[in-house]
Amino acid sequence: MTQGPVPVDAMGALVEALKRLPGVGAKSAQRMAYHLLQHDRPAAQQIAHALQTAVAQVRHCARCHTFTEQPVCTTCLDPSRDARQLCVVETPADQAALERTGSYRGLYFVLMGRLSPLDGIGAHAIGLPELIERVWDGEGAGSGVAVEEVIVATNFNAEGEVTAHVIAEALKPRGIRVTRLARGVPVGSELEYVDLGTIAHALSERR
Amino acid sequence: MTQGPVPVDAMGALVEALKRLPGVGAKSAQRMAYHLLQHDRPAAQQIAHALQTAVAQVRHCARCHTFTEQPVCTTCLDPSRDARQLCVVETPADQAALERTGSYRGLYFVLMGRLSPLDGIGAHAIGLPELIERVWDGEGAGSGVAVEEVIVATNFNAEGEVTAHVIAEALKPRGIRVTRLARGVPVGSELEYVDLGTIAHALSERR
Ligand SMILES: [Zn+2]
Ligand SMILES: [Zn+2]
Repeated sequence: MTQGPVPVDAMGALVEALKRLPGVGAKSAQRMAYHLLQHDRPAAQQIAHALQTAVAQVRHCARCHTFTEQPVCTTCLDPSRDARQLCVVETPADQAALERTGSYRGLYFVLMGRLSPLDGIGAHAIGLPELIERVWDGEGAGSGVAVEEVIVATNFNAEGEVTAHVIAEALKPRGIRVTRLARGVPVGSELEYVDLGTIAHALSERR
Repeated sequence: MTQGPVPVDAMGALVEALKRLPGVGAKSAQRMAYHLLQHDRPAAQQIAHALQTAVAQVRHCARCHTFTEQPVCTTCLDPSRDARQLCVVETPADQAALERTGSYRGLYFVLMGRLSPLDGIGAHAIGLPELIERVWDGEGAGSGVAVEEVIVATNFNAEGEVTAHVIAEALKPRGIRVTRLARGVPVGSELEYVDLGTIAHALSERR
């Protein structure tokens, strides 16, 4: 029984690295490495540069926690937005989906995840203490306007519902109005894949 | 109608870069970028480093054209291999599949692709002139042993068959024995996904 060829070190290291991308297994990583080295080395260099730049420059907004390269993101700094409303979403992609409906003019808080105790993702990991402080400080985290309503727009699946419940329980005792997107959004779906009309409807029907 | 949030430059650039990976669309690229920046920045740095190292160091073997970091790969330099046999494969992954069978002790020529005129991939792109020179030079490209048999192990799909045909036509006039893996390999399949026993059988039944 002969051994296979000795793995090329840089090639093998590249395959191993690419396997760390979500959704990429050994076969996909091998095909990606092969494609980049054989057919598209400029793309390999572009990806490497973009990764390094993003790691170096992308931070979290001090007010809403979304990704930004500035201390506070452009949405939070926009004076035309209604700081009395705060919409809580799981990810920047969910925020972008809500923005595309054109139906919401308030601010956001981006959890950058959702409660998932089985995966070790607890309240601190998704910034719940910061959210509570953000809502309770009475100054809108520097906006000068107190939050009057928190619209919980976590996804309508088990973990998103638990997250919504925990947020509501944490905020209601302080007299904050806590609403949830109406259930026009299909149960079990991921918000970012929902059509805009459904999201807009769910927003207007929030309870 | 409000616009979506202004894209974060470094984040947007990362998503665009990741979309250049084969099989990765806009949604996948967004999820990859989000995952790396939110949950696994060390992976982002590892991938960037591996890409740059591979682009800088991975070249093609002067004899068989596979990926290597040396002028000639370890397989081609292995004195225990039978230089009278030359197996032509499309990719390093196909070569690795053949190696894993333990049934082949000859050398290889890796086309790094297959003929696909519609995609602009012609004989030069897959190194056919170099293959012919490799077979005809009578010295095994430095091994000192002339090639007596070329085993064509391109995939059993339309493009692989055309590639095999063109190789056979090019080599037969010079009296080289040109064989093809037996059709024990399922028609229409990709070699690297075929089970080892089938490949070993096809190798022994080559015609
Ligand atoms: Zn912000
Ligand atoms: Zn070689």
